[in-house]
Amino acid sequence: MNSEKTLIMVCNDDGIFSPGIKALAKVASEFGDVVVVAPDRQQSAVGHAITMSVPLRANAMTVAKKYKGFAVNGTPADCVKLAHGNLLKKNPDLILSGINHGSNAGINILYSGTVSAATEGTILGYSAIAISCTAYPEEADLTGAMEAARRVVKFVLDRGGLPRGVTLNVNAPEGEFKGIEWSRMADSRYVEEYEDRVDPFNRAYYWLTGQFELLDDGNDSDIHILNEGKATVTPIQYDLTDYSLLKEFGEEGL
Amino acid sequence: MNSEKTLIMVCNDDGIFSPGIKALAKVASEFGDVVVVAPDRQQSAVGHAITMSVPLRANAMTVAKKYKGFAVNGTPADCVKLAHGNLLKKNPDLILSGINHGSNAGINILYSGTVSAATEGTILGYSAIAISCTAYPEEADLTGAMEAARRVVKFVLDRGGLPRGVTLNVNAPEGEFKGIEWSRMADSRYVEEYEDRVDPFNRAYYWLTGQFELLDDGNDSDIHILNEGKATVTPIQYDLTDYSLLKEFGEEGL
Repeated sequence: MNSEKTLIMVCNDDGIFSPGIKALAKVASEFGDVVVVAPDRQQSAVGHAITMSVPLRANAMTVAKKYKGFAVNGTPADCVKLAHGNLLKKNPDLILSGINHGSNAGINILYSGTVSAATEGTILGYSAIAISCTAYPEEADLTGAMEAARRVVKFVLDRGGLPRGVTLNVNAPEGEFKGIEWSRMADSRYVEEYEDRVDPFNRAYYWLTGQFELLDDGNDSDIHILNEGKATVTPIQYDLTDYSLLKEFGEEGL
Repeated sequence: MNSEKTLIMVCNDDGIFSPGIKALAKVASEFGDVVVVAPDRQQSAVGHAITMSVPLRANAMTVAKKYKGFAVNGTPADCVKLAHGNLLKKNPDLILSGINHGSNAGINILYSGTVSAATEGTILGYSAIAISCTAYPEEADLTGAMEAARRVVKFVLDRGGLPRGVTLNVNAPEGEFKGIEWSRMADSRYVEEYEDRVDPFNRAYYWLTGQFELLDDGNDSDIHILNEGKATVTPIQYDLTDYSLLKEFGEEGL
């Protein structure tokens, strides 16, 4: 690996000013040159949204006084698309997304802007990794998440990249590093609760307050391993076809 | 099947006033009672976004002078969550999303609000089907898409529902019905292009104009079958784990 030539793009969904993206840019800088392309504000839970109805703007800026970058008025997936399509003069060797403040394990993967930025990179043909820390606070100790990122970045660069179509999704507990294991996405969901409230004009409104529910009792899932205090890395792919059911249903007429 | 007791919820991402949702509600009404819960405006390409930072509102209304419903100021996934969590007094037997104006085949599945509404239903434990027509215009002939929906709804209700974790994703060409086949999601992507423009204040902005690229030469993919003029139905699932790569990588240390 020639670190002079390695270019790593860093994105996230918490916005370009979040502590998590600075921590990830620092890890990336140990492996090569860094360029940051990230939303100009919080974009959590946007999933794989892309912006088509309004124009995008990208303001050149310096992140953490060190890393060149662009703040984009769009979603995480927009950032990766715009970086690839216009902003970057040279294609990055690796796209990193995070470090998200909050876990993206289990069903959270589907709602995650952090993971979608990495997946968008994978779709466009890049090697891409999403990294999240279970702790939400801005002042969370990201030491373990940074070490998990470091190990997975090294794994990917040492192999010369990831196979086409796969994204690595990394999660880490807050605090010091206590190991990292390969994992699968835990079966889980939110038991929806909306608080019914009434506004000052006596009109009803609803505020989401779902409770996370683990439906998976295996010991090899991302959430199980995280709960044991270790970081996880799950290979994910974007072909959503259920091949076993296709085989079963495919015999039946419609 | 007792049609008096069957309750079908209809959602979409084009908004509660789109012709497509009226066409789908009409098909649903052939099988049972219908309730519509849909965004109050266009929400295309929002992916699996959910709204957490602002309150949701739901206005009771009647759709196409026939169907009871709610217009929600949120995303398609929000509509399903809020319907499940608060709006509906009785759980629906089936959730339908569409008929979308525009194909949700191949990689479009990932960006689709239509598909995400159905997937959200699946996550919450419902049987759910997404239906899209390849034609964008509001006045598109949805005859074939309605017939495709009719056949797949009958397939699901006759079986007493879908297995947990699977969503059916239906696509149909514009115009008359010419058959429907089981399919898989085509490998595909957008070759990104952003038009660089300059605003009246001499500042740059970017507008997305990607070109769709089919990377899949199999004859069993959704896009291939659609191109032959037939409708498609693809079973999709939301466990994104790449199990074959997990097996391969799982042997390696990090």
